[in-house]
Amino acid sequence: MKKLLLFATIGTIVLFSCQKPNQKIQNPKENLPIPDLAQFVNPMVGTKNMGHTYPGTTTPFGMVQLSPETNIEPYSIDGEYNGETYRYCSGYQYDDHTIFGFAHTHFSGVGHSDLGDFLVMPTTGDLILNPGEANKPGSGYHSQFSHETETAEPGYYKVHLEDYDIKAELTASDRVGFHQYSFPASEDAHIILDLVYNIYNYDEKNVWTFIRVENDSLVTGFRQTKGWARNRKVYFAMAFSKPFETYGHKKYDKLSYNGFYRRFEEEENFPEMAGRNIRAYFNFKTQKDEKIKIKFALSSVSTEGAIKNLRAEIPGWNFKQIKEETRQKWNRELAKVQVKTSTPEEKQTFYTAMYHSMLSPIIYEDVDGQYLGLDQNIHQSEGFTNYTIFSLWDTYRALHPLFNIFHPQKNNDMVKSMLAHQEQSVHHMLPIWSHYGNENWCMIGYHAVSVIADAVAKGNTDADLNKTLDACISTSNVGYFNGIDEFIRNGYVSEEKSAYSVSLTLEYAYNDWCIAQIAQKLGKTEVYNQYLKRSENFKNIYDKEIGFMRPKLRNGEWRKNFDPMDTHGQGFIEGNAWNYGLYVPHEIDTMIEMMGGKEKFAQSLDKIFTTEIAEKYIENNEDITRDGIIGNYVHGNEPGHHIPYLYNWTGQPWKTQERVRMIMKTMYSSKEDGLCGNDDAGQMSAWYIFSSLGFYPVLPGSDEYSIGSPMVKKANLYLDNGKTLVINTKNQSPENVYVEKVEINGKEIDGLTLKHSDIMNGGEIKFYMTNTPAK
Amino acid sequence: MKKLLLFATIGTIVLFSCQKPNQKIQNPKENLPIPDLAQFVNPMVGTKNMGHTYPGTTTPFGMVQLSPETNIEPYSIDGEYNGETYRYCSGYQYDDHTIFGFAHTHFSGVGHSDLGDFLVMPTTGDLILNPGEANKPGSGYHSQFSHETETAEPGYYKVHLEDYDIKAELTASDRVGFHQYSFPASEDAHIILDLVYNIYNYDEKNVWTFIRVENDSLVTGFRQTKGWARNRKVYFAMAFSKPFETYGHKKYDKLSYNGFYRRFEEEENFPEMAGRNIRAYFNFKTQKDEKIKIKFALSSVSTEGAIKNLRAEIPGWNFKQIKEETRQKWNRELAKVQVKTSTPEEKQTFYTAMYHSMLSPIIYEDVDGQYLGLDQNIHQSEGFTNYTIFSLWDTYRALHPLFNIFHPQKNNDMVKSMLAHQEQSVHHMLPIWSHYGNENWCMIGYHAVSVIADAVAKGNTDADLNKTLDACISTSNVGYFNGIDEFIRNGYVSEEKSAYSVSLTLEYAYNDWCIAQIAQKLGKTEVYNQYLKRSENFKNIYDKEIGFMRPKLRNGEWRKNFDPMDTHGQGFIEGNAWNYGLYVPHEIDTMIEMMGGKEKFAQSLDKIFTTEIAEKYIENNEDITRDGIIGNYVHGNEPGHHIPYLYNWTGQPWKTQERVRMIMKTMYSSKEDGLCGNDDAGQMSAWYIFSSLGFYPVLPGSDEYSIGSPMVKKANLYLDNGKTLVINTKNQSPENVYVEKVEINGKEIDGLTLKHSDIMNGGEIKFYMTNTPAK
Repeated sequence: MKKLLLFATIGTIVLFSCQKPNQKIQNPKENLPIPDLAQFVNPMVGTKNMGHTYPGTTTPFGMVQLSPETNIEPYSIDGEYNGETYRYCSGYQYDDHTIFGFAHTHFSGVGHSDLGDFLVMPTTGDLILNPGEANKPGSGYHSQFSHETETAEPGYYKVHLEDYDIKAELTASDRVGFHQYSFPASEDAHIILDLVYNIYNYDEKNVWTFIRVENDSLVTGFRQTKGWARNRKVYFAMAFSKPFETYGHKKYDKLSYNGFYRRFEEEENFPEMAGRNIRAYFNFKTQKDEKIKIKFALSSVSTEGAIKNLRAEIPGWNFKQIKEETRQKWNRELAKVQVKTSTPEEKQTFYTAMYHSMLSPIIYEDVDGQYLGLDQNIHQSEGFTNYTIFSLWDTYRALHPLFNIFHPQKNNDMVKSMLAHQEQSVHHMLPIWSHYGNENWCMIGYHAVSVIADAVAKGNTDADLNKTLDACISTSNVGYFNGIDEFIRNGYVSEEKSAYSVSLTLEYAYNDWCIAQIAQKLGKTEVYNQYLKRSENFKNIYDKEIGFMRPKLRNGEWRKNFDPMDTHGQGFIEGNAWNYGLYVPHEIDTMIEMMGGKEKFAQSLDKIFTTEIAEKYIENNEDITRDGIIGNYVHGNEPGHHIPYLYNWTGQPWKTQERVRMIMKTMYSSKEDGLCGNDDAGQMSAWYIFSSLGFYPVLPGSDEYSIGSPMVKKANLYLDNGKTLVINTKNQSPENVYVEKVEINGKEIDGLTLKHSDIMNGGEIKFYMTNTPAK
Repeated sequence: MKKLLLFATIGTIVLFSCQKPNQKIQNPKENLPIPDLAQFVNPMVGTKNMGHTYPGTTTPFGMVQLSPETNIEPYSIDGEYNGETYRYCSGYQYDDHTIFGFAHTHFSGVGHSDLGDFLVMPTTGDLILNPGEANKPGSGYHSQFSHETETAEPGYYKVHLEDYDIKAELTASDRVGFHQYSFPASEDAHIILDLVYNIYNYDEKNVWTFIRVENDSLVTGFRQTKGWARNRKVYFAMAFSKPFETYGHKKYDKLSYNGFYRRFEEEENFPEMAGRNIRAYFNFKTQKDEKIKIKFALSSVSTEGAIKNLRAEIPGWNFKQIKEETRQKWNRELAKVQVKTSTPEEKQTFYTAMYHSMLSPIIYEDVDGQYLGLDQNIHQSEGFTNYTIFSLWDTYRALHPLFNIFHPQKNNDMVKSMLAHQEQSVHHMLPIWSHYGNENWCMIGYHAVSVIADAVAKGNTDADLNKTLDACISTSNVGYFNGIDEFIRNGYVSEEKSAYSVSLTLEYAYNDWCIAQIAQKLGKTEVYNQYLKRSENFKNIYDKEIGFMRPKLRNGEWRKNFDPMDTHGQGFIEGNAWNYGLYVPHEIDTMIEMMGGKEKFAQSLDKIFTTEIAEKYIENNEDITRDGIIGNYVHGNEPGHHIPYLYNWTGQPWKTQERVRMIMKTMYSSKEDGLCGNDDAGQMSAWYIFSSLGFYPVLPGSDEYSIGSPMVKKANLYLDNGKTLVINTKNQSPENVYVEKVEINGKEIDGLTLKHSDIMNGGEIKFYMTNTPAK
């Protein structure tokens, strides 16, 4: 018990691990041992098929994600776009055999992409600046590699670059990537810095790039892109452990730069380089096994900022030390929940999910708190750490609720980051899908209000609530955004307005319920009533004749030729009327009543899980991965994530229990293909973590969780408030998926709901498991 | 006499006119009347042919140059480059009949170009976003105009836009352009903001542009270009006096932006616009004669900076007030020298030259002292005002020396701006030709050292001299710059190294003499000797066999097939062996001796002015304008600017006197075609001002001036030190060009030289003129 308490206090330390350096670490027991849970993390999970995770190194919520790239999309100068963008959202696919180098920024598990900044590749022999074609040995600077020499651990990645006999090792601090390359003896060793390389490199993604060779071992610069983010600029500072002997660059711009007087040989040993598409190189002579190390710092503010980050975070050259420190950072975060499972695989799957849940949002500010805001001006975070990468349509569901348990302070910072975004927004809107000071408008709804309402409901934000409510109200009234004007005026978004009109109406209704909750908290009855009324709008698009949510025309008639099985052009996005049509989390009982009552609704749920989807609904559909389908239930997409839990509202909770265990078992694993679809910035993993622990936040914005069926045998949650919650199971086994009863601190609960306080107050929750449905 | 003293004190006021607002204006007499000398300025001078001046509005050394554009170069989307870049360096040609709008940044009199930012054009009727073709009425949004309705004065420009019956008026404060458009009655009035328009718009000059409609009367954004400067970014804030009713934009990018989810109708009333090539428009309804005013602020730092500038400089909407204040700013500067001339034209020519001498360098910082530096980081000017646009190969000759008389404090700030540039330079070099945080490497030598040496010699800089010397030394030792390595190693730049090897060697030699002077001032004898030795290197390229400076091969042999008359490929740039070959300002006596003695040298000078240049040397030579040629003397280019004064060293000063008066008479006028070549950022005008006053700085970096023949009848110089110098002439007339004697405060001087102190101590310099050469 003493040991457990120690970890509980360690939990409070990590709260500050990504904070500004001047913030004091308060706990004197910091140096006490913590369990090495990093050993159970397999960063390779999700790198095969469409998990879209990356195997490289990063810190929890770190700004740098340093990871290998195994394919390179052709850019304009080489030919046509090769259509592989979606596969290479995170730069790496497990089945590949070539590595092009190591870039410093990656999304984790996202279904759209960007980033891939600053590819570094060590080579030997004749200088080759052409990257070559994937999986064609010798066609360019890339190298063959094998998984046998590859290691991927939290905070560490290693691989042998066979073509050059170079051992590549990577680690990172929050804002600095740390490379260590062990060279063979060579008169002709090179480090290539390829600024052409991009993820999501549509033709001419680069807007401009700039490199300054400050001295023989420090290089700075920036890259500006219009990939997904259309105004994205990242600065860097790159320090070498050994001075390079010579250097140079080649420019691959379609149009030459005409303004530069050729007073110099610009290409070699000229310390300024600028253009759209540049590859620079730095030449060395190396002894056998000589290590050349590179510290590569990022900043959204300036090269000065990058240098500041570099010096603050990694002043020395001790690779091993940073590697170990970063592993410890991971261990501290992972140790917040310590589980026993029936199988080692489940433990690996669980901790990998924990790992994946901490890869975004990422810190987005320099060590001094400066960052480039949405208004393209430099801002200073005051009283919070600024975060970016808000994939909110995905993450409001379970990831942010998970943060409210394990990372309440960070989630509070994320709320404040979103409020800063809103202040900087010319639309006066909270983020929809934003990264690096840009709004991408990806997916639908304004789910920032859900994240805020959830933090409010759980008492986890000290943001000014009046201002916060204003920000939410402002967001929900931007008429020109995606049919909001119609939603307000007519109570639904019309088929004419949007091809996703039903999804939009459902989500706006839910979002407005969230706003109502914040208003209620503030005692603003009028606002509460107004938004509660808006939240009822889901009723306007339910066609009771056919028993489905259905797209409606402006004139109030239903849209003709409606196919509830189809996911395209039927009023939904990433879902269909069968599954997405059940998205009324805030009024599930009303919905069930509306749809014919509990029995009929349960039958409908059954059908979802058992119907075979016709091939025509799957083929050519990027949104659905075959791995992620159970009948008409698509776990690889988010709109159905609450569906298995809906049985709880129909009087058939054992079906929730069955389904949840089945999904955990079949849709997740600890192998490379262990994700059945994009991890979606951690939402898929968060679903797994919650479900593993036996409950799920079906209604973010409330303080309730719906009970499922725990996968773990035992779990100790070491909460930041110093309390410990023990989740125990009795008779847990792969077969015993049914919950007989649940006790909180020895007292059996009535119903299928846990309160947030049941968790945060600590103590014990005990699940009695059985192999018989408790009908 | 009392009146004169008043102006002298007013002189001290204007010293601070471009300073930061928190600097105190010290003189209580500020509001006393100053003569309206602006009436003698004709901003149209130089707008016809190749003067490359602009007729629009600016303050002395102001950051905004708001001026009409009369041609638009085709950009990639419309077709081929039309070859008119050189003619349109400043956007306006007097012979044109169309105006495309009014842009906010222009070089004055430069032979290469850039800028042309943020074209604003008011129109009525159907919205047309295509600019159309110059001088083809109705082909686009441009308008016909006539010089009859056009007014160009210091601080004010007016024109009637005939196609739309709109009166356009422009004025400006230091950092803010102020537009006033008087519309006809219209249901369909527009203000177009064309971010595609560019000067020097090589295909795809724009790198990225961004517009934010902050509210119904404030728009912000930026443009980033890779024109001449390859990393140039200008932010803006645009405030309208009347809210627009609707707005929108069109994008003309060759490649669409793929990252943006089309959740909106982006083109109309959507407050964010981004892309390479954008034209935005703002729609109004107008009453007859209704004025719509626009305040358009610039910043190199941020849109926040632009807003700050806007609010600080023009808080209200009083166009007339700003117009008058700006005219007063000009009058204060112009009043520093008050001349009487033989003809009104001479007075106009003189004050127009004064005006043109204050159009660059320009202030380059926000009102709070922030600016984007050469290292692409934001800097704060500490203890000085930061300036940009350093066309140093031109301006070190007479413009900066002129500043040392009329604007010593500003010149000191310019020295400090150059030192800041050096600190930010990855090459550790002072500027060569720099603007907007970029180094363009245009033309040759490192003449910043001359500007510094001149300021030092004249006691006009309080910069740390040790640091300053270090900056000069560092600059002169950047081996990879344009043959410096060879110059140091071999004593000359070789023909193999550069096509301008002779020009390079001559200028480096002179520049090193300048560095020696600074070292001498500091008592650093070793450095002094070292640089004095380097300054002798001009001797290494003199071929005494043929009597000319001549390109030398690396092996020490003279280059074969040498044509001293040719300006191309003969070792010179913008000059030939006859004229440029005489560029040894620091050792004129030695050069004359080397070249055969005074008599022979004077004959050679005679030949320069009397030889007819064969057509083959002129045709297809952009560097030589026919207007600017007198025999083989090319006044339109700078390398010969000292040549007329060289007779003073041959014992034939009357020839200097003849030539100088002849050049002033034939190469300058008060009409549109009054400049015989590019004004070259004020150097041509500075030559005129000095020569008009009767002396010229043949050797910048020394404190001496060589006496010519004054054009003025009288000139009162009201110096910032509170003293007044009166230049008087006796028997002045167009025929009496010869100087009989010169008296300083009644005492006849011996020789042909004035000291800087003779000027700055005030008093009287009296020239006795005659029609007979004083042989």
